[in-house]
Amino acid sequence: MGEQGARTVDESAIRWRDEVTAEDVERIGELVEATGFFHPGEVSVARELVEERCAKGDASGYHFLLAEAPSGALLGYTCYGPIACTESSWDLYWIAVAPSAQRIGLGRRLMEATEQEAAKRGGTRMYADTSGREQYSPTRSFYERCGYATAADLEDFYAPGDSKRIYAKRLT
Amino acid sequence: MGEQGARTVDESAIRWRDEVTAEDVERIGELVEATGFFHPGEVSVARELVEERCAKGDASGYHFLLAEAPSGALLGYTCYGPIACTESSWDLYWIAVAPSAQRIGLGRRLMEATEQEAAKRGGTRMYADTSGREQYSPTRSFYERCGYATAADLEDFYAPGDSKRIYAKRLT
Repeated sequence: MGEQGARTVDESAIRWRDEVTAEDVERIGELVEATGFFHPGEVSVARELVEERCAKGDASGYHFLLAEAPSGALLGYTCYGPIACTESSWDLYWIAVAPSAQRIGLGRRLMEATEQEAAKRGGTRMYADTSGREQYSPTRSFYERCGYATAADLEDFYAPGDSKRIYAKRLT
Repeated sequence: MGEQGARTVDESAIRWRDEVTAEDVERIGELVEATGFFHPGEVSVARELVEERCAKGDASGYHFLLAEAPSGALLGYTCYGPIACTESSWDLYWIAVAPSAQRIGLGRRLMEATEQEAAKRGGTRMYADTSGREQYSPTRSFYERCGYATAADLEDFYAPGDSKRIYAKRLT
């Protein structure tokens, strides 16, 4: 995708994929790293969830949605799944958009497609966690624009002075 | 332990153990089932965490503390561990006391010993989740007596009308 032209998602130029392969472990790791938002421990977790999915399929509890350019370049992805021991609550574990594909509404499209998929599988609520730190203010605004409301803010959860903000949205 | 006599923990009659073996999968499953507090899906999760610990050791992220009678009967246990991607927050995944050993303060002792162990390993906060339903009022009272405060209540989390109550305690 060029940097010129209208900065909105060109749906015809995006390939959607909901199965991951062993090759995606590295590709997703690189994407998450490239956003600059996650520390090495978190990047490792992102990779591990792809491995879990490859090894166990649906039984892993992790579902994926990948958005790719016609060239095959990974533009963004989500990792989400049903929360164990709940009737119909789902968790958005990861959402990341490549720097080159940001500000074109791709995050919003990924979120909508992910919510639809969860709802199709019986999900009635989606949860998403993020940090309460100033650095994550764009992330929180993004969730709020997507219709998420703050359900909780756990003080000092990630580290002293770094709270966990829990967002929730009712799926329809 | 007889049913007669003072209903307080006789420390000399309790064996503490912090390593689990394959045999504990079934014993812990039976204990959790016997409490009558958990549905079959939850009992399966309790078993799986023991298997994870046996397979991966500390890398599983699950630590255990077991209280046994001199006869070897399992009286109670906790399963807890550091929360991934946090600096020093820990989660109490399970605490259960056998019906025959309830009301003697064993839950309290298990909790204290678990918190001490987490603090020794660098934990500064312990989290414990439970249901907001009426049936779990004794569980919530127990956490409150142990010094836990409500950090959040996630409406309809477990099921419609069944919220998740998140308790937190600062470890010293």
